[in-house]
This record gives sequence, structure tokens and C-alpha cells, in this order.
Amino acid sequence: MSRTVAIIGGGVIGGGWLARFLLNGWDVKLYDPDPEAGRKIEAVLSNARHALPMLYDSRLPVEGRLDISDTLVEAVAGVEWVQESAPERRELKHDILMEIVAHAPTDAVIGSSTSGFTPSDLQSGIDRPERIIVAHPFNPVYLLPLVELVCSKHNPADVMEKASEVLVSLGMFPLHVRGEIDAHIADRLLEAVWREALWLVRDGVATTGEIDDAIRYGFGLRWAQMGLFETYRIAGGEAGMKHFIEQFGPALKWPWTKLTDVPELTDDLVETIASQSDAQSGRLTINELERLRDNNLVAMMRALKARDSAAGRILNRHQKQIAAPTAFTSGRPIETVSRVIPIDWTDYNGHMNESRYGQVFSDAADAIMIMIGADESYIAGGQSFFTVETKTAFLNETMAGDLIRVETVVMEAAGKKLRLRHRMLDADGGDLASCDQLLIHVSLDTRRSSPPAPHVEARMLELAAGHADLARQAE
Amino acid sequence: MSRTVAIIGGGVIGGGWLARFLLNGWDVKLYDPDPEAGRKIEAVLSNARHALPMLYDSRLPVEGRLDISDTLVEAVAGVEWVQESAPERRELKHDILMEIVAHAPTDAVIGSSTSGFTPSDLQSGIDRPERIIVAHPFNPVYLLPLVELVCSKHNPADVMEKASEVLVSLGMFPLHVRGEIDAHIADRLLEAVWREALWLVRDGVATTGEIDDAIRYGFGLRWAQMGLFETYRIAGGEAGMKHFIEQFGPALKWPWTKLTDVPELTDDLVETIASQSDAQSGRLTINELERLRDNNLVAMMRALKARDSAAGRILNRHQKQIAAPTAFTSGRPIETVSRVIPIDWTDYNGHMNESRYGQVFSDAADAIMIMIGADESYIAGGQSFFTVETKTAFLNETMAGDLIRVETVVMEAAGKKLRLRHRMLDADGGDLASCDQLLIHVSLDTRRSSPPAPHVEARMLELAAGHADLARQAE
Repeated sequence: MSRTVAIIGGGVIGGGWLARFLLNGWDVKLYDPDPEAGRKIEAVLSNARHALPMLYDSRLPVEGRLDISDTLVEAVAGVEWVQESAPERRELKHDILMEIVAHAPTDAVIGSSTSGFTPSDLQSGIDRPERIIVAHPFNPVYLLPLVELVCSKHNPADVMEKASEVLVSLGMFPLHVRGEIDAHIADRLLEAVWREALWLVRDGVATTGEIDDAIRYGFGLRWAQMGLFETYRIAGGEAGMKHFIEQFGPALKWPWTKLTDVPELTDDLVETIASQSDAQSGRLTINELERLRDNNLVAMMRALKARDSAAGRILNRHQKQIAAPTAFTSGRPIETVSRVIPIDWTDYNGHMNESRYGQVFSDAADAIMIMIGADESYIAGGQSFFTVETKTAFLNETMAGDLIRVETVVMEAAGKKLRLRHRMLDADGGDLASCDQLLIHVSLDTRRSSPPAPHVEARMLELAAGHADLARQAE
Repeated sequence: MSRTVAIIGGGVIGGGWLARFLLNGWDVKLYDPDPEAGRKIEAVLSNARHALPMLYDSRLPVEGRLDISDTLVEAVAGVEWVQESAPERRELKHDILMEIVAHAPTDAVIGSSTSGFTPSDLQSGIDRPERIIVAHPFNPVYLLPLVELVCSKHNPADVMEKASEVLVSLGMFPLHVRGEIDAHIADRLLEAVWREALWLVRDGVATTGEIDDAIRYGFGLRWAQMGLFETYRIAGGEAGMKHFIEQFGPALKWPWTKLTDVPELTDDLVETIASQSDAQSGRLTINELERLRDNNLVAMMRALKARDSAAGRILNRHQKQIAAPTAFTSGRPIETVSRVIPIDWTDYNGHMNESRYGQVFSDAADAIMIMIGADESYIAGGQSFFTVETKTAFLNETMAGDLIRVETVVMEAAGKKLRLRHRMLDADGGDLASCDQLLIHVSLDTRRSSPPAPHVEARMLELAAGHADLARQAE
């Protein structure tokens, strides 16, 4: 049975909510007085339909139905949840929430996306305020899990329970903010950084681009997986969180920001932080936390490397500088791969996943392609090789951090056809796997087979001739 | 020819520098008066040797030689670079830098890891200060690329050029901080967040764990790839950066942080930010930036998903909630995979990489394993199936975002042996690839073949019997 939500306000945030609900199978009714709302929603939905399903290794539920309502009253009729994402003006939000309360079912959750106002503030002067809560999401709402949930003393417990259940079912992380405070938690931190960044730009210390680089090549990567306190817990080392705070305490007295109002580090406050940090991360030793952090960093940085973006672009540039070229000696197999097994290729126990054997052999074929002149610029010119068949034998296991090599023999080179045999070896020369691979030269315009360029064909034949004896022995 | 660096101070930061140089092929001489220095360095090196090589798809250079020097004078003799990472006390750093200048080669770069002091401050009172610069890295130094490079008016241009060249060769990102300021750039932002976070804990609004969750499930993921301003540029939408600042300007007047000293948003400042943002990101439209952001987020969140950590753990929990169970009907192939192709499985042009066909077929086999009772708890109990051979035919291409399905036929089930045939289909039922896969039941203790448990064998036989006709047709 489908569930229905009303989205009031279809801007970037409202549109993000709409997409999150719709792609999780909810029916959605949108109300937005902007005549352009439909077009704007389609733009957000197009982004969300591109990105959200890719997060999962199984299919999302069948998309719900989207209706655009002519009035707020029509939109909120009979729904289970109303999400208000109007502009951040107190009077406007008040008027809208009052109308929602008047017309929505009495048991519907009424969430406000406000980044600044407290629930008490939103509820004041409204007759039945008990279903109104703050449900503050983060852009892009269809991807980021965080939702700050805040209630006031007027909200009964069941509203928060209901809200949490719904948000979890949408794949989100409801964070119960226990104290009412302007801007909740995240935006207070963001605002502090924003103010300091404005000073840096104003004083000419750094440009916007330099500030972004200072974030994304450094602490941004740490914060994406651990946040602030767990990161610092590691910095404190075995001496612990108390030691860290005491060590860094003096900096609070220094003019390290333009924002110099600071809390006093009383014994009580130090004790509070240390014990909260124990509760949060105390199940792991510092060394276990370091490994957790490092494995997460490696996995995220490799994800960016595959995108050639941010820190990943720096890795690719460095790899080009240090990679040894593949060498060919007649009568000897070609060493086409030499590397360690990265953490993102392994299961929880550290064994390399079966499918990554294929990755290694595909990389080995790429090395051969570069050797014969079918390199990046050749591919950019519209020609390449496609693999049409592989036969792989899995002989032994290998683990994260293990060194592996691949030795490749050119078994056959004839016209469009290139046949390779790869052997994957461990550091001691033991066999891990083997792969027979048939590649066909193709035109990337027609996506059909085609003869290789003369210089590529000549080089194919040269390698095959140099490997003729090896190939005969291997058949 | 090997290059040599002196590491002065072997704590967490000095040790991280040491690992970064050593694993990039430099010889390293360490001086640290702490008698425990050797042991501490081994701990950092063990982490670094685990993590750094996994970032790359080719091998790092051969590790350099590590010597522990008895004196600073011995350590700095004949080196190309000296990195000082002493505790953050001005007099101590002064004394050490003075001794380094007296004994290091006159053309060596002398980098200080100070997070707070300016180069002018470090150089004052030192006779030949022109080789001393700030080179401030971020923990873990062996993984994070950022180094803040700061010079004073005493430094000739060639020191900064030399320093940049070396840092880039180590895979790092040297950020030239153009103005001298206490705490440079990144630590000013960190300090602002730290102060606000301390207030939140002190006032009982949030615990350390809640603050970390507010960061890592929300803006931390954004900052890991874009930073602050580029993220906000997107939030401004087509109306642009100026619009965003004007819209969010009023919040600067509100008590959204405890840190209430704020720069005035003059027309000049707004113009400066808008034009710097254009210079930084103006080559891309807002929609292009949105796609860049979303693709990076998807790739990073999927990397965390594979680690079952941070935001990735939330994804896994949600996927379990929404995944449909695999169903079996006698006489019909089993739908073992139904999903879209994620961005991290594709090349720059969006085509699925060859090796991911193997991933899909490996996932299909996992679905069969679960159906026959060889599930997580069975594997935890020490038994599983290993793939020993696959034969894959690549028939057509598929792209990021495309919906695919796999239909699997159980071709043979006999004792330890399970033979599957998978067909990968596009949304219209067109063939993309096929795979014959031979699996053997194994004991995970001996890593050798063994007979399956009776309930697993019974289920294997049941599926094979139900597929007998399909298998005959397919042979």
C-alpha cells in the first residue's frame, strides 16, 4: 500500500525531499505557488534519478506518483507527512504551518526544513502545535543521510518515533537534537567556518579556491568519515582525549580565529568531553581507530581517483610520475601489472573479491594496448580493442596489501584479433590465477570490428613474433 | 640516485613525514631525543606501509633507507630537506631551527610543521633565515595530500619552487599561503569549528558523538570533494554566488554561533567572493557542478558502503530493508541480479568497465548461494563455495545508470560441484554478456574442497532438478 507525502515548497531543498520520497516509492503531492515549480522539480528529479539508484546494489522500490496540487489545502489532504520548505522567513513559515495544521490529517507529521528556527519558535501562536517538528536536511537531500530532528515540550514522544521510522525507511539518518538552539548543530559549525572564511577572503589571506583546497585536500577527507572529535581522539594517541584537549587547550587563548569568544576549559568540561568520547569510540583502541580511518581514507580517495576528481586527481598525477613503463624483451613474458591489492578490492576478511581478478587481467590488457600504440590518444581518435571472451582459472587466494604481478604472453596477433594469456603471480612467484583473453580491434564510431592502424598492427606482429616460442609451449 | 631528508622529531606528524618520504624512495635520517622514538616510528610506518601503497594502481618506488641519528648535527649533514616537527613551543622550535641552519647544507630546504607560527616569527633572530619555511601537513601525513607552504619576505623564490617540486614528487598538494597569519588557513577554520563545538558540548546541546554524526553524515561528505565555497556556489543555483551571499547574509547578524565577531558584507567583499568563485568554478554550469558533486558523493559513499563504515553503514542497512528476496520457480531461470550500473563501475565516458561484468556474475552467484542456504551464517561457520573457473562472453556495452538483470540457470549440482550459467540482460531483455561459472564447495579452515552440509546439498539438488530442462536446452 503506497504512502503519501505533501511537499510544500519545491526549491532545492523541497525538491530534494520530493525526490527522496518519490524514489523510495511514496506518492508525492507538491504545492508551490511558483509557476516555474514544475520545471524546477524536473531538474532536481533528473539529478536524483541519475544519482540515488546508483548508491545501491539492488533496485529501489518502484517510483511513486507525483501530483502537482493547485492549493496547499489539496496537497495536504489525507497525507501521512507534510514537509514545509518555504524561504527562511519567520512570518511566512508561521502562516504556512498554521494553514497546514488546519487542513492536514491530525496524525500527520509536519516537518519544517528550517535551518535556523527552533520548534518552539515555529509552534508559538499555533493552536495545535504538537505535530510540528524541525526536520532539517542537507543538500543534496536525495543523497546525504543527515536530518536534524528537533522537538519542543509541546511534541508528544510518538511524533519523534514516527518521524524517525519514516526517515530511516527513506535511507536517512535522523539525528535527535536534544536541545533547542538557533541553527541546531550542523549549521552552527558551518556558520563558524563561514564567518572565519569570510574574514580570510576579506583580509586577502586566501581566495575562495585556496580555502576550498585547504578543506578538500585535508580535513574534509577526515570529516567525511569520522567527524571532529573521533579524529582528534586519534591525534591524542594512547594518552587519550584528555591529553589532547589539555595539549591543544592553550591555542584557545591565542588569536587563531577572528572569533575569539571561547568557553573556559574547566575540569568539568574536559571530563565531559573525555567521557563522551569514550562512550563514542572507546570500544576501539587508538591503533584500531587509525586503521579504520586509514582504510576509509584509502577507499574514499580511490573512489575520487576513479573519478579523476579532487584528491583523486592528485593521486593520478603522482601515479603517472612514478609508474615504470612496461618493457618488452623478445622470448620473455611481459610484466604487465605490478601492484599491491587495495582495501577496496577485498571483502571484510581482507580476501580479494573474485571479480577483481578480472580487473587485474583487464589492467594487464590495457598495458599491452599501450605497448602496441593503442593508447589514450589512439582511443580518443576513435579506435580501440574490445574484450570479447575471457576464460579465467582461479588457483589461489590473495589478500589486501599483498604484492602481485602479472606476466602476459601474446598468443596470437592476426588482423583484428589479439589473443593474450595472463598469469597472476604472488610475491614468491606462486600462481594465483590465469586468464585467456580474446580482444578484437573496433571502431568506436560504429562499435564494430575494424582493422587496426598500420603502426599498431606492426607492433602487434612484432610482439607475437617475439613470443612465438612461449606461445607454442603454452598451447 | 637516492635523495636524503632529515626528520627532526618523530611524533605523529614527524613520523608521518618520515613514512611519506621513505615510501617514496627517499633515504631518511631521523633525530629525536626520545629513547622511545624508534618504537613509535615503527608503529607509524606499519600503518603507512599498510595504507599508502594501496592508493596506487602501480607500485611505489623501492623504499629508501632509514637511519636513526644520535645527534641533530649528524642527521642534517648532507641532506636535501630538513623537516622540523618539534612540539608547538616557540623557544624550542627557535633553538632547533638555529641548530639546523648552522649544520645543514646551505641549499637544503628547512620546513617547519608548525600549525600556528608564521615564518617571520620562526625566522626572527636567526642569522641565515632564508631557507626556513612553513610546510604544515595534515594527519595522517602519509595519506592526506595537503601541505600549507608559507614564506616570509626573507625567503628567495627558489626555496618555494624547490619545496613545491619535492612535495609534488611525494604525491602531495602544496598550497601556497600568500599571507602570513597565525595558524595559516586550515587551522583557522578548524579552530572556529572546535570553539563552537566546545560550546555545544559545554551547554549540553550535543555530545561529541552527536556532533561527529552531524558532520560525517552531512557536510563532511560535501567538503571531502568540494570544500565550502564551491558547495555554496551550487546552493546559489543559476542566480549565482552573489545571490547566495546576499540570501545568507542576514544570518551573519543572527546569533547562530557563539562566535559573533563578523566581517561586514560590503559590496566590495561580495564582489571579491563572486569573482573568485567565478575564477575557481566558472568553467562549469551549476548543473555540471551538481553532477560532479553527485557523482563524487556516490563514489565516496559507495566506497564507505564497501567498508560498512560511516554513511556506508546506513546505506547497507537501508538496502537490506528494501531488497527483494530472490525467488525460485521450477522451470524458469532465477533472477539473481536487478540493479543499475553505478558511476564507480564505469570509465570516463560512462561505459561499464570490462571487469565489472565479472562483479555482476559474482553477485549473481552470491544470490544463488543465499538461496541454497550457503549464507552469511553458513560462511561464518567455516564453509563456502569458491569459484574455480569462469568463461565469459562480452556481447554488448552498458552505461552508468542503465538497468540490468541477470538470469541464472543451475546447470549441474553434484557433490561439491555447482555449475551455473548466467545471462546479463538490458532493460529490454537484450543480451549484454553470458558467463559459465564453476564453483566448488570448500572448508574455510583447510581452504580445500569439502562436501556441502546436507541442507545445502538438498537445496542444490532441488534447484538443479527444477532447471533440468533449461540446462539441457542450454548445453
